[in-house]
Amino acid sequence: MPTYHATISVTLRPSILDPEGKAVHQALQNLGHTMVEDVRVGKRIELTIDAEDEDAAYEVAETSCQKVLANPVTENYAIDITAASPSAA
Amino acid sequence: MPTYHATISVTLRPSILDPEGKAVHQALQNLGHTMVEDVRVGKRIELTIDAEDEDAAYEVAETSCQKVLANPVTENYAIDITAASPSAA
Repeated sequence: MPTYHATISVTLRPSILDPEGKAVHQALQNLGHTMVEDVRVGKRIELTIDAEDEDAAYEVAETSCQKVLANPVTENYAIDITAASPSAA
Repeated sequence: MPTYHATISVTLRPSILDPEGKAVHQALQNLGHTMVEDVRVGKRIELTIDAEDEDAAYEVAETSCQKVLANPVTENYAIDITAASPSAA
């Protein structure tokens, strides 16, 4: 069965306060990076999936986001599927 | 001055053990997602930067990675710059 890579970006919704982003922003300002206007911190998750085809791999990634990887109330997610093994291309 | 968005992916080097990835992998397996072979968890950081041009924005993002955002011993980083305001395009 072919192998796929799902690269998932999980980010806080724009309306949600980002304390980690604020802390990083403060640290960069203290280092003199005053040109940095804002910082938002999120998660980048890579899944290696064995699936029949790209659609099946996408479905596994999506249900993983809905059940485990992303909080539907406070976070958005985006999924990017790439073929890992040649037989999947 | 034009505004740019730097999207930074910070990932553990392949040789480094990823306990968070292991935990997520176990949770997905318990939910029946046995097709998920491996999970790697990293950070996705978005900087909003005021800079003269794209190269200057990249430089700010790179020094931010080297000083604050990425651990040079255990992590790799990748930077993607996009124009935020029309005047920057």
